Amino acid sequence: MLLGNDAPLGVFDSGLGGLTVVRALREACPRESIVYLGDTARVPYGTRSAETVVRYAIGCARVLVRQGVKALVVACNTVSAVAIDALRVEFDLPVLGVIVPGARAAVRAAGAGPIGVLGTRGTISSGAYPRAIAAISTRAEVIGQPAPLLVPLVEEGWLDGEVPELVVRRYLEPLAEKRVRSIVLGCTHFPLLKSVIAKVSQSLSSDPVAIVDSAEATAEDVVSFLAERDLAAQRVPRDTSLELLVTDLPKSFAEVAARFLGHEIENVKAIDL
Amino acid sequence: MLLGNDAPLGVFDSGLGGLTVVRALREACPRESIVYLGDTARVPYGTRSAETVVRYAIGCARVLVRQGVKALVVACNTVSAVAIDALRVEFDLPVLGVIVPGARAAVRAAGAGPIGVLGTRGTISSGAYPRAIAAISTRAEVIGQPAPLLVPLVEEGWLDGEVPELVVRRYLEPLAEKRVRSIVLGCTHFPLLKSVIAKVSQSLSSDPVAIVDSAEATAEDVVSFLAERDLAAQRVPRDTSLELLVTDLPKSFAEVAARFLGHEIENVKAIDL
Repeated sequence: MLLGNDAPLGVFDSGLGGLTVVRALREACPRESIVYLGDTARVPYGTRSAETVVRYAIGCARVLVRQGVKALVVACNTVSAVAIDALRVEFDLPVLGVIVPGARAAVRAAGAGPIGVLGTRGTISSGAYPRAIAAISTRAEVIGQPAPLLVPLVEEGWLDGEVPELVVRRYLEPLAEKRVRSIVLGCTHFPLLKSVIAKVSQSLSSDPVAIVDSAEATAEDVVSFLAERDLAAQRVPRDTSLELLVTDLPKSFAEVAARFLGHEIENVKAIDL
Repeated sequence: MLLGNDAPLGVFDSGLGGLTVVRALREACPRESIVYLGDTARVPYGTRSAETVVRYAIGCARVLVRQGVKALVVACNTVSAVAIDALRVEFDLPVLGVIVPGARAAVRAAGAGPIGVLGTRGTISSGAYPRAIAAISTRAEVIGQPAPLLVPLVEEGWLDGEVPELVVRRYLEPLAEKRVRSIVLGCTHFPLLKSVIAKVSQSLSSDPVAIVDSAEATAEDVVSFLAERDLAAQRVPRDTSLELLVTDLPKSFAEVAARFLGHEIENVKAIDL
């Protein structure tokens, strides 16, 4: 087990969506090793009670803490919305989520204009983004748009063409009417549809609209955090490792995971929670 | 609690999809009272292990048995595929599922031609329909087509127009190439897209293709079963009742449930399992 700065980052999500955060981390801080846990047996968390989500999140975090991770990255909007504080109380290490970095980047990109948030129905109705944005800018107007079809589109691998464009258009029209100036991708699945979302958004608005990828925003947040705390890994990138743990190994796993990571996967281990 | 023939039917599903079976039952046997349980807190079952599905199914069935139902109708493809036998061992009352009636109707409609099955990824990979069809006709060729986007389309209420037509076309093309003569809607959500599926199927094939609604096939099966066993209700339809139990009451519940039942809903009770 590696200790100190060279210990891995622990990243977890209710399923595979959090792999977009892993991908962004690999680009933003290639020296860091990562252990990823996807709770694929209990996905999705969005339909469960807050108590249950907290319990599941603590279970996931415990596995990663036992692997000796130096910090926890919660790559799941649902857990970031309801369980971050409980995780900080339970574990004696830094815990970073996806919502605050996305909110911060959205406020920065929107200037004084309204901010749109695309998310699952659960994330939008939780109000987590409006709360996080209000804590940064009291003036910002936030328009939430549930976009439940985007998750299955990504899982099917339908990432461009007629169907995704029509679906995305239907979700973006209400945001365009409100003249939003930035749109947060408030679900870890959505970065895979970023180019379609950018294209459709551009076709709906005469002014530029920034698309905020919360996976990238989170990775940048992790980099700054590690630098500030002097926790960044020192070893060379080729010595880093990526270990993937899942609680259930569905047949389509390798295919879907490769889509999220942008390359073939290896070292997947099924564990019990 | 009503006893004997006037006792209600107990219908359950992992979520709301089974309400299409309730709707079909209301039409096929309007004298029957119904208690419906949707395990909305633990939906979807399709991603869970067989042991877990059996345990959940027994929990659901127990609630209905305590309500004094005269028979159990399993309005869930996943439970029908893996837990029917366990339910029959556990409870001393008739248990009917959705797969056998759909399989039987598909064989009848296909003549000697190939049969297509549309279902969730879980249902298709379980092989439950090919097994059920093989038990009826050893000659029948079965082509399974996972259609995971149809469930969220139904839950979003996108039941006609460009998006559903394009999505359905993409799933039906491989079936049309194999010249299937009947297509089973092997998921309780799909009957809501029946008219789109019929329209697209017709546009892809010069020969007629029968669309088998497994909710309707199940309701017909229940009617025959009750008649054979002399268990049909005797009272007049206006004295029947429909009680809905759910394990979680999401905000969008009323809207989605009304879509499945075809009318506004009342009498919804949230219970713990």
